[in-house]
Amino acid sequence: MSRTPQTPQDWWSTAIVEMRPGMLRFRGYAVEELIGQIGFAEMVWLLTRGELPERSQARLLEAALVSAVDHGPQAPSIAVARMAMTCGVGINNAMASAINVLGDVHGGAGEQCVAFFLRIAQRLDARGETAEGAAVAAAVAAEMTALADAGVRHVPGFGHRFHPVDPRAPRLMQLVDEAARDGAVSGRFAAIARAVEAELARRKGRKIPMNVDGATAVIFAELGFAPALCRGLFVLARSVGALSHAWEESQSGARNKGPIPRNLLWTYTGPPPRKLPGRSDGE
Amino acid sequence: MSRTPQTPQDWWSTAIVEMRPGMLRFRGYAVEELIGQIGFAEMVWLLTRGELPERSQARLLEAALVSAVDHGPQAPSIAVARMAMTCGVGINNAMASAINVLGDVHGGAGEQCVAFFLRIAQRLDARGETAEGAAVAAAVAAEMTALADAGVRHVPGFGHRFHPVDPRAPRLMQLVDEAARDGAVSGRFAAIARAVEAELARRKGRKIPMNVDGATAVIFAELGFAPALCRGLFVLARSVGALSHAWEESQSGARNKGPIPRNLLWTYTGPPPRKLPGRSDGE
Amino acid sequence: MSRTPQTPQDWWSTAIVEMRPGMLRFRGYAVEELIGQIGFAEMVWLLTRGELPERSQARLLEAALVSAVDHGPQAPSIAVARMAMTCGVGINNAMASAINVLGDVHGGAGEQCVAFFLRIAQRLDARGETAEGAAVAAAVAAEMTALADAGVRHVPGFGHRFHPVDPRAPRLMQLVDEAARDGAVSGRFAAIARAVEAELARRKGRKIPMNVDGATAVIFAELGFAPALCRGLFVLARSVGALSHAWEESQSGARNKGPIPRNLLWTYTGPPPRKLPGRSDGE
Amino acid sequence: MSRTPQTPQDWWSTAIVEMRPGMLRFRGYAVEELIGQIGFAEMVWLLTRGELPERSQARLLEAALVSAVDHGPQAPSIAVARMAMTCGVGINNAMASAINVLGDVHGGAGEQCVAFFLRIAQRLDARGETAEGAAVAAAVAAEMTALADAGVRHVPGFGHRFHPVDPRAPRLMQLVDEAARDGAVSGRFAAIARAVEAELARRKGRKIPMNVDGATAVIFAELGFAPALCRGLFVLARSVGALSHAWEESQSGARNKGPIPRNLLWTYTGPPPRKLPGRSDGE
Repeated sequence: MSRTPQTPQDWWSTAIVEMRPGMLRFRGYAVEELIGQIGFAEMVWLLTRGELPERSQARLLEAALVSAVDHGPQAPSIAVARMAMTCGVGINNAMASAINVLGDVHGGAGEQCVAFFLRIAQRLDARGETAEGAAVAAAVAAEMTALADAGVRHVPGFGHRFHPVDPRAPRLMQLVDEAARDGAVSGRFAAIARAVEAELARRKGRKIPMNVDGATAVIFAELGFAPALCRGLFVLARSVGALSHAWEESQSGARNKGPIPRNLLWTYTGPPPRKLPGRSDGE
Repeated sequence: MSRTPQTPQDWWSTAIVEMRPGMLRFRGYAVEELIGQIGFAEMVWLLTRGELPERSQARLLEAALVSAVDHGPQAPSIAVARMAMTCGVGINNAMASAINVLGDVHGGAGEQCVAFFLRIAQRLDARGETAEGAAVAAAVAAEMTALADAGVRHVPGFGHRFHPVDPRAPRLMQLVDEAARDGAVSGRFAAIARAVEAELARRKGRKIPMNVDGATAVIFAELGFAPALCRGLFVLARSVGALSHAWEESQSGARNKGPIPRNLLWTYTGPPPRKLPGRSDGE
Repeated sequence: MSRTPQTPQDWWSTAIVEMRPGMLRFRGYAVEELIGQIGFAEMVWLLTRGELPERSQARLLEAALVSAVDHGPQAPSIAVARMAMTCGVGINNAMASAINVLGDVHGGAGEQCVAFFLRIAQRLDARGETAEGAAVAAAVAAEMTALADAGVRHVPGFGHRFHPVDPRAPRLMQLVDEAARDGAVSGRFAAIARAVEAELARRKGRKIPMNVDGATAVIFAELGFAPALCRGLFVLARSVGALSHAWEESQSGARNKGPIPRNLLWTYTGPPPRKLPGRSDGE
Repeated sequence: MSRTPQTPQDWWSTAIVEMRPGMLRFRGYAVEELIGQIGFAEMVWLLTRGELPERSQARLLEAALVSAVDHGPQAPSIAVARMAMTCGVGINNAMASAINVLGDVHGGAGEQCVAFFLRIAQRLDARGETAEGAAVAAAVAAEMTALADAGVRHVPGFGHRFHPVDPRAPRLMQLVDEAARDGAVSGRFAAIARAVEAELARRKGRKIPMNVDGATAVIFAELGFAPALCRGLFVLARSVGALSHAWEESQSGARNKGPIPRNLLWTYTGPPPRKLPGRSDGE
């Protein structure tokens, strides 16, 4: 599949941006037309998807981005941003160290949840089903069994170790429902997500409510974003929190800030003090 | 200046976000009220500034963000994003490596330009002047002389090595002028920037037009963003380009992509082949 | 499996380092005893493994580290280091952006190869076999079939797209053989690696020689390093190249250096110029 | 100063490494000769300096590297490494986020101290003085006054907020003294550093002893490393700690580890809960 480009130009080809002296176009649109006419979230869509979104689509994307900007300085990404800022690096470096930790465990649930929803939809497609009623429930149950068989203990996008109910999820789902009622999105993935919630409650014997990753995954799936792109969208959102906390920390006067105040030391669990074995080679 | 917090809680205090089980507030606003009501750019403003912007302010911020998302794969940040993506890391890692290079030379012109404009404004303030006519010209000339005396050869925000006229700048300035006419901003920094352009032309004997960094600096200064925050806003904007290019590259099938195709090697300029000096110590 | 620490001290417990005012111990050894007595590679071993290595073990580790420091500015990691350095960031930031791209595809072959060798050894262990003769060949063939069945097309650690024979591999294997002859290592993984090479030649009909990743994987496996640690060791080694190239580039005077010279532009492959669709909502 | 390369090859020229199919040379030495003959620290020297070190020089470099590998999980770099590792990223990414924070405040003291020592040496050179007796004291006093006049409150390399006496410093100085006695280094910078210590004690009325940054700066200055390279050497050393702690943390089972245990929340210092202002524009 690997290309064999003959020139540096081909090696660096792109469909995103075109440039000549005095001219700059994104996906074919002159930059000076885009500026002032489209919002930041629409620009995110245009660059990642290739076309401009409908206004109703842009609103949903915007809601998803707004919901994910920050979850406090306990989150590793935000803690890293704050600590980095006290070490004498640029604010871009602090942001980079922060978003660099948005890996599979800290930033990946949305991506995993979109992929999970898409696999359920594929099960429905394979049987010519839409996303209604018993067919959905059956596809959800089958996919959740597959997940459990693969050893996955937590369904991505559901449950929260801190919030009994994540306050972002119901509000995001309300927006999806409104958009579905207006025909802006199909509502298929909202139905799938709710069927997952129902199946989870049935299996666990208690409600495991959708969290922000689940609800934004519904939005991203409804809008047609590929799973890997959804990680990127989450990164964009959380970058706002990283920036804000880095900036706030830069005003604090802390220097070389570690995870706990200097007067609290850690527990050492290694071997007791010992002598270096004799070194006979004279060094 | 250093705080002496007594508890981990104080060590990690913040004015940005408040959280309890089931509750999440940003700057005092419940997240479920913000979602769907404010746009992504407004959320950027709220988190970094502490208050919500006026709609007209948000529009200007949005225009600045839209204008800075990307400048092609020749830019080091975007090249890094693309190369990283072929190395088998997550898209967040590719974005991190990319924005990590937005340092003083690649991403710092906007911040430097805001600081430059603010110093000119301070000269005017110190003399009780507004930003009109001869007073501006004098303050600009004085500050540019100070810059030259400090050895700065390129005034940040003016001139472009690729674009004779940067197509983003005039459009951004048009939006600033409209906002000033509507009373949404003062227009003071637009006047300062134009005076800089005039003074530059006078000194160099040819037009050195404002570039995207200069025009976004006008917007950021009009909106009251501190210089260091402006670097962060640029990082947010360019993150969109980094994400888009990383994603596009991930579809390309390239593996381990370096700066030039594999069949082109670099010029070696070091010493000719030579033998290792005798090692008498038996290793 | 998650711990439930009751204090910040427990949350940050470690067996690597112990500290009190005026005292600093690594794995139980006072730092002032270690300094001047053990080499840098021995310190790497002590911190990652918990005990000091034998001198012969340290020599092998050292050889592996020396062999992997650099492979030229075409490698994405090194290119990133050089580009970053022209952007106005610190040398630590340039190194960070560089090693951040040492992912599964660019820096992961060693780790994958160690894991591959260990799986072969487990097949032998399961049957009570040492690493000799026909038993090795059978275990190798079985594991390679498993790899092929899993869709893996390139056996990690063998073959090189640039070097017909990677000059580092034979020399590293020579050192392993010497150490095995002296009883410093078992030689088991050297035998496994050579059996892989033989099986590969049989299957492909031509020699696919061991490369640097394969030979260092032999060393790491002989020395008992866990696969994930081997990625880390490679990162340490390549950091030397990243530092050296970043430093050299910092002397070059290049600013904002992208992948190709500024006068060469990329091939644009997107849509032709087009007008922005009418925006009826008055923005 | 900027080069105007005509080809990609020239744009990526280097004096560090030469490569052809089957051939790989560093600074002119064939890699297969270097492997097994020189140690890791010697390779660091060769790549950064261009020539091989004397064995006695390599020993001093090695001691400096050994002394700086780690200072516990309270240090931001190490904390970042551990936190990153719980977020589901690769060990290279954890190391990158960690060393990325080794900025001016956290990792820069060594570099700053080398530069400080070099400025003192220049004062001596300018007056044709060696580093003995009264001349040194005068040059030190003059440079420290210059530092104080520039607003620098802490002389880099001296004093420690945790260790009354940093146990690494006396041991490192002992090695420098031995090397000076053997003629391997001049001892000039050891004399300068001690004169700084004496002058500091005189000015502050109490001993502010040399710390690890000061003592390694003596070594780096004696060995002729440029200040910016010294930051890089510190990064190499601390990468060992980052790797070790990331690896240890990966075995802990912690997920998404933040700076304090989950049951301890931060102090919120922002505005009290408040309602979103009325939004009349219908969004």
